[in-house]
Amino acid sequence: MPIYNFVAGPATLPVPVLNQIQAELTDYQGTGLSILEISHRSPQFTTLLAQAKQLLLQLMHLKASEYEVLFLQGGATLQFTMAPLNLATKFHRVAFVNSGHWAERAMAEAKLIPDLVVDEVASAAPHFNHFPLVELTGPAKYDYLHLTTNNTIYGTALNQLPEVDLPLVGDLSSNFLAQDYPFDRFALIYAGAQKNLAPAGLTVVVVKKTLLAQMPTALPAMLSYRKLAAKDSALNTPPVFQIYVAKLVLEWLVKQGGVAAIEAVNRQKAQLIYDAIDQTTFYHNQVRPADRSLTNVPFTTGDSELDQTFITKAQQAGLMNLKGHRLTGGMRASLYNAMPLEGAVALRNFMLQFAKDHEEEK
Amino acid sequence: MPIYNFVAGPATLPVPVLNQIQAELTDYQGTGLSILEISHRSPQFTTLLAQAKQLLLQLMHLKASEYEVLFLQGGATLQFTMAPLNLATKFHRVAFVNSGHWAERAMAEAKLIPDLVVDEVASAAPHFNHFPLVELTGPAKYDYLHLTTNNTIYGTALNQLPEVDLPLVGDLSSNFLAQDYPFDRFALIYAGAQKNLAPAGLTVVVVKKTLLAQMPTALPAMLSYRKLAAKDSALNTPPVFQIYVAKLVLEWLVKQGGVAAIEAVNRQKAQLIYDAIDQTTFYHNQVRPADRSLTNVPFTTGDSELDQTFITKAQQAGLMNLKGHRLTGGMRASLYNAMPLEGAVALRNFMLQFAKDHEEEK
Repeated sequence: MPIYNFVAGPATLPVPVLNQIQAELTDYQGTGLSILEISHRSPQFTTLLAQAKQLLLQLMHLKASEYEVLFLQGGATLQFTMAPLNLATKFHRVAFVNSGHWAERAMAEAKLIPDLVVDEVASAAPHFNHFPLVELTGPAKYDYLHLTTNNTIYGTALNQLPEVDLPLVGDLSSNFLAQDYPFDRFALIYAGAQKNLAPAGLTVVVVKKTLLAQMPTALPAMLSYRKLAAKDSALNTPPVFQIYVAKLVLEWLVKQGGVAAIEAVNRQKAQLIYDAIDQTTFYHNQVRPADRSLTNVPFTTGDSELDQTFITKAQQAGLMNLKGHRLTGGMRASLYNAMPLEGAVALRNFMLQFAKDHEEEK
Repeated sequence: MPIYNFVAGPATLPVPVLNQIQAELTDYQGTGLSILEISHRSPQFTTLLAQAKQLLLQLMHLKASEYEVLFLQGGATLQFTMAPLNLATKFHRVAFVNSGHWAERAMAEAKLIPDLVVDEVASAAPHFNHFPLVELTGPAKYDYLHLTTNNTIYGTALNQLPEVDLPLVGDLSSNFLAQDYPFDRFALIYAGAQKNLAPAGLTVVVVKKTLLAQMPTALPAMLSYRKLAAKDSALNTPPVFQIYVAKLVLEWLVKQGGVAAIEAVNRQKAQLIYDAIDQTTFYHNQVRPADRSLTNVPFTTGDSELDQTFITKAQQAGLMNLKGHRLTGGMRASLYNAMPLEGAVALRNFMLQFAKDHEEEK
């Protein structure tokens, strides 16, 4: 029985990548050393790092002359602090779109920074069943506008970037390289790698080079994009293993045809599940259709006991980790890049059969 | 030909650990999922985390009621900032022992914190060929004394903790669990895991529980020991893979007999190399014998061309990464826990033979 893991994160990796990691784990490229033991000052690693950066920029259609790629640690949560520390230096005022839990967390961390004004300029609270529209009128004295492009918990996504005259800062953690954006409209992009790119423990930052020179010089080294960029992400020992896996996943993604191509597959996968929801009265999803997420599909039968039966029986059928987030209950199918179309088909089929079998219980 | 990796870090892992990682990489404990895909909210991971914490405290002879273990990211370099932010709250004044490059880096980062006074109370500059003695007289109005217990670059180590009436903060990165200390004399211990415990990307922090309650509450989450401890290192997605490897290495270390037992082996390994240096006139090591490091042994022939020949020929003989640090030149043998005695024997034999073969070139 094939097993499909619908977990919200850390997420599945492509099977060929897993197999390659396993095959070469004790001998990396004939060195006799494991990738787990390779020095970050070795030519093997510096080559790996350069390849990963080049592949990422290529996939995002960004120029190496315009954008710097950083491979950091600490997750998106550390970026909630680093982004304002490094970027909010002119107006000391930042604008946030409150699209859900993680946007609220980002705001809460920004508010801990002394002398920084944090404005919520749009909000989908309290139901978070849509992605809020941003309308800013008059001269906007903000250092940037912060967007959380996909909301794993509520299953909403930003499907069109707002037309505002402000630098955009994006937390793309949960749909990074899974949904295509005009990435060059961002001043700064950050993403925890554990959804679509690598095992937990790596954070990708892509930042406009022109901004680096304007950043403060007296920040602690590990909180300074400028200092980290000056040392090409190796100011101290970087997470070599995660960067290695990221490089393999990026190569895999190029083979799949790039971000637009994988988005098309993700759209097919998501549509299978949304159709199973919409074409029955058995399942519900509360999100405004235009704002539905491609990577996270929450749904419920409306009956918490029946939801639990669904989750248990799905697990027995090899469809793992479909339990929804504690804030929403119900089910959630996370369909990141490494989830094959077959996984979504299997879930769709299971959903339709389960609806038939349990129709009279509602 | 066996290959021995004398790199200063990321360092070798025990071979049985590497083999186990490889064997179960695509199916962790019969879950059908890779450890790289296991959720940090899963029972598998919470069990793993609890085991790793318990093993670490056991090996350090510390009580879980008195010390908290945190598994963090960002390396020792982020700790250079976090330690003063969290601990220097009463006197806003900290004391540093300048024992080498990494102690200087820790001091430099502390100096970036506004309103913090940083005093160098002992120094081995400029030659760093000994570990400086700390003598503090009178009432010491410091929040803590910072020690870097082992200096990878210069090959010195702190072999006896100073008798001072101050909380001790220790950067134990390069001899963590390789040299036995009375760990309960420290208020805070931190260590990048990549020398003796796990692949790069994990930082271990061990902190006195009584201190946590006194720490500031308004620090950014990822910089707050208190907030990180409240969420048991899973405030956001922790580096699951590194914690898994750490647990395997800790189990291996228990099997070796614990820290005192591995220190005895490390002492044997280091002695083999120091003897090869001292018993010839061919090699030199500048460190005061009482302060010599067990884990990092720098040496030179005194002739940079001959040193280069040594490094090249050693590599051909399977003795890898013996090049010294750019600040010191020459050679350096790093002999962390996972380096078997046979590796040190092989290096000793190579050194003696090389000295014979090249005696007339000096």
